[in-house]
Amino acid sequence: MSQCRIVLVRPRDPNNIGAAARAMKNFGFTDLAVVTPHPPVWSEVVSAVNAEDVLTNARIVQSLDEAISDCNLVVGTTDRTRVEEKQTVYTPLDLSCEMAEAGYNLALIFGTEKHGLTNEDLSRCHRVMSIPTQPDCPSMNLGQAVAVCCYELIRDRAQTAIVPRPAETATAGATEAALRLLLEVLRQVDFVLPGNEPDLTRRLRSNLLRLKPTKEDIEILCGILSRIKRGLAGQLDQSGEKLE
Amino acid sequence: MSQCRIVLVRPRDPNNIGAAARAMKNFGFTDLAVVTPHPPVWSEVVSAVNAEDVLTNARIVQSLDEAISDCNLVVGTTDRTRVEEKQTVYTPLDLSCEMAEAGYNLALIFGTEKHGLTNEDLSRCHRVMSIPTQPDCPSMNLGQAVAVCCYELIRDRAQTAIVPRPAETATAGATEAALRLLLEVLRQVDFVLPGNEPDLTRRLRSNLLRLKPTKEDIEILCGILSRIKRGLAGQLDQSGEKLE
Repeated sequence: MSQCRIVLVRPRDPNNIGAAARAMKNFGFTDLAVVTPHPPVWSEVVSAVNAEDVLTNARIVQSLDEAISDCNLVVGTTDRTRVEEKQTVYTPLDLSCEMAEAGYNLALIFGTEKHGLTNEDLSRCHRVMSIPTQPDCPSMNLGQAVAVCCYELIRDRAQTAIVPRPAETATAGATEAALRLLLEVLRQVDFVLPGNEPDLTRRLRSNLLRLKPTKEDIEILCGILSRIKRGLAGQLDQSGEKLE
Repeated sequence: MSQCRIVLVRPRDPNNIGAAARAMKNFGFTDLAVVTPHPPVWSEVVSAVNAEDVLTNARIVQSLDEAISDCNLVVGTTDRTRVEEKQTVYTPLDLSCEMAEAGYNLALIFGTEKHGLTNEDLSRCHRVMSIPTQPDCPSMNLGQAVAVCCYELIRDRAQTAIVPRPAETATAGATEAALRLLLEVLRQVDFVLPGNEPDLTRRLRSNLLRLKPTKEDIEILCGILSRIKRGLAGQLDQSGEKLE
């Protein structure tokens, strides 16, 4: 598995460090380094909800070189408007493709809130990466940029690994039984015109299947239809609840 | 083109509304609705950098129904730990796949910072969606969650549309010329052993090509090698800068 360190270079607002830590932890990253000439004021950080450990384990270093010395893929982030004419700019998608190869020790670097990374900082990077933001609002909040990048790094893995368990789709037989019950009710209320039944049946069946009802949907539908059928037949006993 | 409205249900912190607005604008979304019994204090919002227009155009409504009445795909977000056993949970990836079909008027709904959407709110949604966060830190900051979802919605489109212009890769001819110059210098410093030249040439060529140097890389390399070659031959004139 590849490793990923988030490096924040001279962040000004401790709450942005906290927000970055929270986003990291949300997506399973814990290795944070902060390059700063001033020690951050950890006690002020209220934004690192559930990610206090990421903050307290963060390495505080005095230079970017120190933060990245053991990394073999160093990626600096910048906003697209600051990229030089001839520079190749990676997207988060490019990065996650490259990271899919094992064995990288990635450092993903974010600059100050106001001015981002300097050209001096960027010259230490294998890649320069920009999140594809709009030209009229290119600059992202630091914590949000970290969240988007961390999400991108786990995106394909997480969403194939944590496949949502789909609610069980009703069988064709159960759906057909519900349809038959529906047709009985429709006949009771004279909705079925003479000669119209085969066409109506096909349309209702096709609509029902397109909705791909779950087992539970069909159970509820059958329950309702049964009750209506009994109500229409005047067979509701006194203990049953009357449908409104 | 499908449309997307972001709906914030009873957010408590105006700065989170501002952060959501900024993330929306970053990714080209402008339609914001805020469901709240109390009018948000816009004057306090300092987080909507460059997205003040999204905030001032936001619709303040008194109910979720009002916010979504004209939408034909309503997606509620929740954290994975709060999802019921049998519920089908969409991921942001599922959503962007579904949104790739044209003609949707999407409402993407986010609940309060502390408790998210209620079951009552979620019952108004066609889909329930969770960002694939870690079980030990499932809950995201509101602004960061909005950023991740907006990014996901534009991800594939933006990154194929805004293809970074790759720096021009050097031609095979230019690379070969640089290699020839390098070999001349290597012969000058007796690096090439007798009988070793064909093998060394192949290895150096193959290494050089694997690095996929740009036109500019090769120009710099040739400039350096030419200067070394002249220096070794004692032909540097007095006006030339000596290489250290």
